[in-house]
Amino acid sequence: MTLLEQYLEKKKELNFIDHATSLMYWDLETTAPDGAKEKLSDALTYFSTESFKKSTSDEYYELVTKLSEPEEFEKLDDVMKFDIRKNKKNLDKMRRLPADVYEEFVKTTNKSAIVWPKAKQTNDWSIYKEPLAATIEMVKKVEGYTDPDKDPYDALIDDYEEGMTQETIDKVFGELRQELVPLVNKVVSAPQPDSSRFSFKVPAHVQAEVCKYIVEYMGMDMNRFCQGETEHPFTTNMNIDDVRITNHYKENAFIEALFSAIHEGGHALFEQNVDHKYEGTAGSTINYMGLHESQSRFYENILGRNINFWKPIWPKMCEMIPELKEIGIEEFYREINHVQNSFIRTEADELTYCLHVILRYEIEREIFKGNVTVEELPKVWNDKMQELLHITPGTDAEGVLQDMHWSDGSFGYFPSYLLGSIYDGMFLEAIEKDLGSIDDILAAGDIKKITAWLKENIHQYGATRISSEVLEKVCGQELSAKPLIKYFTDKYTRIYNL
Amino acid sequence: MTLLEQYLEKKKELNFIDHATSLMYWDLETTAPDGAKEKLSDALTYFSTESFKKSTSDEYYELVTKLSEPEEFEKLDDVMKFDIRKNKKNLDKMRRLPADVYEEFVKTTNKSAIVWPKAKQTNDWSIYKEPLAATIEMVKKVEGYTDPDKDPYDALIDDYEEGMTQETIDKVFGELRQELVPLVNKVVSAPQPDSSRFSFKVPAHVQAEVCKYIVEYMGMDMNRFCQGETEHPFTTNMNIDDVRITNHYKENAFIEALFSAIHEGGHALFEQNVDHKYEGTAGSTINYMGLHESQSRFYENILGRNINFWKPIWPKMCEMIPELKEIGIEEFYREINHVQNSFIRTEADELTYCLHVILRYEIEREIFKGNVTVEELPKVWNDKMQELLHITPGTDAEGVLQDMHWSDGSFGYFPSYLLGSIYDGMFLEAIEKDLGSIDDILAAGDIKKITAWLKENIHQYGATRISSEVLEKVCGQELSAKPLIKYFTDKYTRIYNL
Repeated sequence: MTLLEQYLEKKKELNFIDHATSLMYWDLETTAPDGAKEKLSDALTYFSTESFKKSTSDEYYELVTKLSEPEEFEKLDDVMKFDIRKNKKNLDKMRRLPADVYEEFVKTTNKSAIVWPKAKQTNDWSIYKEPLAATIEMVKKVEGYTDPDKDPYDALIDDYEEGMTQETIDKVFGELRQELVPLVNKVVSAPQPDSSRFSFKVPAHVQAEVCKYIVEYMGMDMNRFCQGETEHPFTTNMNIDDVRITNHYKENAFIEALFSAIHEGGHALFEQNVDHKYEGTAGSTINYMGLHESQSRFYENILGRNINFWKPIWPKMCEMIPELKEIGIEEFYREINHVQNSFIRTEADELTYCLHVILRYEIEREIFKGNVTVEELPKVWNDKMQELLHITPGTDAEGVLQDMHWSDGSFGYFPSYLLGSIYDGMFLEAIEKDLGSIDDILAAGDIKKITAWLKENIHQYGATRISSEVLEKVCGQELSAKPLIKYFTDKYTRIYNL
Repeated sequence: MTLLEQYLEKKKELNFIDHATSLMYWDLETTAPDGAKEKLSDALTYFSTESFKKSTSDEYYELVTKLSEPEEFEKLDDVMKFDIRKNKKNLDKMRRLPADVYEEFVKTTNKSAIVWPKAKQTNDWSIYKEPLAATIEMVKKVEGYTDPDKDPYDALIDDYEEGMTQETIDKVFGELRQELVPLVNKVVSAPQPDSSRFSFKVPAHVQAEVCKYIVEYMGMDMNRFCQGETEHPFTTNMNIDDVRITNHYKENAFIEALFSAIHEGGHALFEQNVDHKYEGTAGSTINYMGLHESQSRFYENILGRNINFWKPIWPKMCEMIPELKEIGIEEFYREINHVQNSFIRTEADELTYCLHVILRYEIEREIFKGNVTVEELPKVWNDKMQELLHITPGTDAEGVLQDMHWSDGSFGYFPSYLLGSIYDGMFLEAIEKDLGSIDDILAAGDIKKITAWLKENIHQYGATRISSEVLEKVCGQELSAKPLIKYFTDKYTRIYNL
């Protein structure tokens, strides 16, 4: 066997193991009965460990290294070139981390991840602060090994959104913060819609049907897609031809399920539209969180919160949810763009959501600069909430304790959410330049033209283009928050008659 | 590591692989979108092959062999003694089969299994007869290697119901045939209920809820159980704590779904009630089809088709399916015991089902005795239908082509279905001796007492007792069809006022 054949053989085995792992995770969350979960978790751990062992084995690394050498590398096609380059980079990084440090990292983060839900439930910051401090120290230590030449927080940001830096984020988040705080102030002072009209009950199976209808309308290939039910919605995939989303159907809050479906549907379209030539290679593993989030948020916010998204399907919506008929599309539109200053990020509207992320980013940055201690976090959090949203959480549970991310060491993840929206402002401009007004396209029921554009310009390339390359190719510009600011200002000035 | 530790280590790995395989099969049938099925099948094949390779490897066989030697064997506890003995027996059998013969067997049966659905669909016996003849020859050849000292058909029967022989089956099926043919004649000539009253629509999600309610009522531990939706209902399990059934919900035939749920629920209770000490060992793999079928049929027929099963839950049934209120429990009871001479085994009632199985058994027996050629099968089939049910199929599709079993070489499987019912007649007597009248127990809403009895006397032992041992321990008697005949005669004389 040639080197490449040996490598592909191992890769194939790894893909089968990863298929089992993803499916077991899906089953754990969607289907397995409670009593089955312990053994299922054991099996999941077994296959995850097998995958880790095999993908970091000396034998595998040697194959990747040999294939990276110029003479062998030149013989590869573009798909395999990308795969080998990316794999080599990751493996080099991982192999710089001593096994005992990795073990210590896992132990430390496990501890804070276990304490976090208890601390949140009992609103008890005191039990969480020490495990959290230990996790922060471990995260710094790990980055010191894996990315010794980088600022640790830059290295973390790069882990979740390759190529991104604090410098860039400071610039775009800064632009946004400056415009957004006064805009939100004006919006929340204006007259608000009556949310109580939307608390009627819609049975779970009806919500599931509506969601299925909507993602199909968006352009999902239903032959390679399915949806399940979980506590928290997520997207997963076994491969390009097997992309799955989940949803949570609260009987008296059907709008939440609709927008979860549209959001996860955006992630799923990205995964589903990757060119098949990348199947089973690094090109099909899109681990750029900002870019991924840009696709989910484009559908959820730019398209889904546009009245024209709903116009062509309104009769169908009213058929499936008869209460909507009397309420009417205008009031529905007002409700799905209802801006409120609130404490919980995951429940925030499109506009204030940005400020929730900026708050977290600014705190993380200061933690890694050594300007904020863990001891001070609750106060810093509350002060920033006052500064950005002019409200103060009544408890730490609805303040600094609300998110899981820090507990498992995922510092640097939060900015991705907002970067996604900032990209979206730019993508919106690019699409309108190519296809004309989004309003018109949506009103004509032609959303699939937009999906085709996203596939053509972004999705098909999978992981082979990082976000800065996508922006360069698609928008011909560097990252800027201006298009997003313009979109927000125009939209909310109109909706709230400012 | 001791020999036992080494063996258990390998066993654990095998169990994880089997978990993946079972879950992938479940996913293929219940959830995966069509476009995902090809890659899922590839992954399933990979893990099945891994399992086969590892469980038949020289290394594994050597461990099993060493542990079978008296000195080591004596050190084992009863759970491991059973495991090693059973594994050794199976491996010895499999290792007698030359690899090339096995490969030929797979190729030959694959061919007939592929041709069969086409032949059935197009009602074309001519394209099927040669692949079927080849499969029969291959099955004989394989049994010649694996069980050289046995009559091939006896060896096949033993594969599906350990310890069973043609001699025993001839006796009990003979007894049954003699009584059943005249009984069915009388029943079908008597006035029949009006089935048309049951063709109203019940939405799938309501049927699913009702089925869930019923299996819980039967005594299922819902914490270790779930149900899915497939074309054909089946039961599967990942382990003792993860038992799953599927169902098919036809909108205008809800009674079918109810009885599928009760039937599969019986299989599931057997799997779920195995003592946890057998977890991960041969004791928890119940591959005695007759004994397994006895449990599903006990719930489906002996309990589920008894009016007293429904009495305590009738108000709840009427609440979930309001149409039942006007129809009433008496008419429902008549409908679920509606006996008709019909062509298709899987759609047959409790009574004529037996004759469908006897027909298949008698034909298989004559095939392996060399008294019937494949060429003659359609005629032999139709003649036997006339003899047993006094009807003649209009086409081979509703005659000799209807079942999948022969196409993949599963000769010897059919008798299990009826053996299960014959055991049930005996179990019914034993339960009534211990607990009193089944009618009274059911009418009092105490079905869980019956489930507890079955767990105590049968289920908990898993695979460690073959059916003849179960009958010996539970009924203190050898196999006899008399109790089943008595049950049938009493019940249908009463229902049909004979």
